[in-house]
Amino acid sequence: MTDFNLKEYIEERRALVDAYLRGYFSKPFRPLPLYESLTYSLFAGGKRLRPLLAISAFEACGGSAEEILPQASAIELIHTYSLIHDDLPAMDDDDLRRGKPTNHKVFGEAIAILAGDALLTEAFYMFTEGDVFSPANLKRALRILASASGALGMVGGQAEDILSENKEPDEETLEFIHLHKTSALIRASVTVSPVLKGESEEKITAMEQYGKNIGLAFQIVDDILDIIGDEKRLGKKTGADQQKGKMTYPALYGIENSKAKAKKLVDEAIEQLSVFGQKAIALKEIARYIINRME
Amino acid sequence: MTDFNLKEYIEERRALVDAYLRGYFSKPFRPLPLYESLTYSLFAGGKRLRPLLAISAFEACGGSAEEILPQASAIELIHTYSLIHDDLPAMDDDDLRRGKPTNHKVFGEAIAILAGDALLTEAFYMFTEGDVFSPANLKRALRILASASGALGMVGGQAEDILSENKEPDEETLEFIHLHKTSALIRASVTVSPVLKGESEEKITAMEQYGKNIGLAFQIVDDILDIIGDEKRLGKKTGADQQKGKMTYPALYGIENSKAKAKKLVDEAIEQLSVFGQKAIALKEIARYIINRME
Repeated sequence: MTDFNLKEYIEERRALVDAYLRGYFSKPFRPLPLYESLTYSLFAGGKRLRPLLAISAFEACGGSAEEILPQASAIELIHTYSLIHDDLPAMDDDDLRRGKPTNHKVFGEAIAILAGDALLTEAFYMFTEGDVFSPANLKRALRILASASGALGMVGGQAEDILSENKEPDEETLEFIHLHKTSALIRASVTVSPVLKGESEEKITAMEQYGKNIGLAFQIVDDILDIIGDEKRLGKKTGADQQKGKMTYPALYGIENSKAKAKKLVDEAIEQLSVFGQKAIALKEIARYIINRME
Repeated sequence: MTDFNLKEYIEERRALVDAYLRGYFSKPFRPLPLYESLTYSLFAGGKRLRPLLAISAFEACGGSAEEILPQASAIELIHTYSLIHDDLPAMDDDDLRRGKPTNHKVFGEAIAILAGDALLTEAFYMFTEGDVFSPANLKRALRILASASGALGMVGGQAEDILSENKEPDEETLEFIHLHKTSALIRASVTVSPVLKGESEEKITAMEQYGKNIGLAFQIVDDILDIIGDEKRLGKKTGADQQKGKMTYPALYGIENSKAKAKKLVDEAIEQLSVFGQKAIALKEIARYIINRME
């Protein structure tokens, strides 16, 4: 793709998000263990995929990364809270996350639950920082984010995932889990950008479809990597899904079919970007990168 | 107070809030246990104190209850989520709430955590419903609510409370816990109303001070009732705070001093209302009612 350097592109924007988050949480607050717990997970080496997607989508609409940093970073707070709560003993009961002890292993369950609650709440405060966007656009974008994160989105997907453990997998339930647990927040990450920028409904819908597709592809690839991936590189145990009796795409369709499905989703996602022209090059490359993870 | 009937006033507005919430959650969603868990706690007989305060504050600014129902009811979602999470085994480990089994006792810990997460997220969606208020006022009010609910507000207070269990009580820590754990959300409940209505900064500050004071008084009275209250009337065990080694006002200052402190706070709260004139009669009576609970 001409001279576009994805690695450099990602690193630059990841650094912007990290700097914004570091600045935002630079001042410790009382009680200190809550602050430490919250920042422990927030700065545990996350890839910042969702903020990156929001920024790239915003750039595809002609905006600059700096303008959308609060909103893009707020989505990372929601993602981080969901990981802390998902790792809890009552949920997935994970001891390791990105190669480090999970939040509750370090700070205890009570503080881990509260750190998650605090991050989720703070996300909506951070999302409404600044005066770059019209309050009306901000309101619409915030509702997209809240809807994708809550009972009808991510939380609903996680609940269905927990409730489906050790049940016979069926196609329809698996689709529900993937669409809600992972895809919803990724979809929202790219959809808020054209909404904030005041773009046409056509562009908003195209971006939404792009996000839905790469969100699904991302989860499928994640499930594949859980089976075939390298433990050290992933920073967590592989085979964990199978051990827990989790419903996954490869468990239901096999690895080759799952790979084909992910590729098809990414191809369709890229098609959606035509309306944004050359400015969407980063979104295209990120979509391809998701697939390349499993090669 | 002339012909003002507090009981009738409260019942009418409580019915409005209940009807709004019932309507909002009238349609079950997937997964059903999440819906059931969330509505179980939301309709477990809560007094709707915070929505009631928001409505009364809005009426003191010349508004009508119907206009602010989504915002007032959204605060109840935040209150309800906090109760579900506070009751968890890793937190206060309570089996009973308002005379009924706590959420995790009925639905299990995982679904209880997720129901709390869903309610908190939905609160921000509900808060931004409708077109009654200007998006700019709505944004400012939402930030007041998020700030009061998060790490620097309610969640911070709950964390400090947990961390202070079985420690020697000190005045400053107790003040921190009360101001954050209970008072912050009550303060926000009345402060959002003048903000949404576009009132003067003077009125906003007066309302904020009123809310802070009655929030503190409410917590002190709650702690007193935990010692002297009637188990059946409260719907929960009395003496629970002492058993858990919780830091409370009466434990530190004694019951009589605590009563005097609560009365003083309420008197000062009522003074703040003078700028609203006769329209603030309900807020005055509610403040007096808090004190009457302990008589």
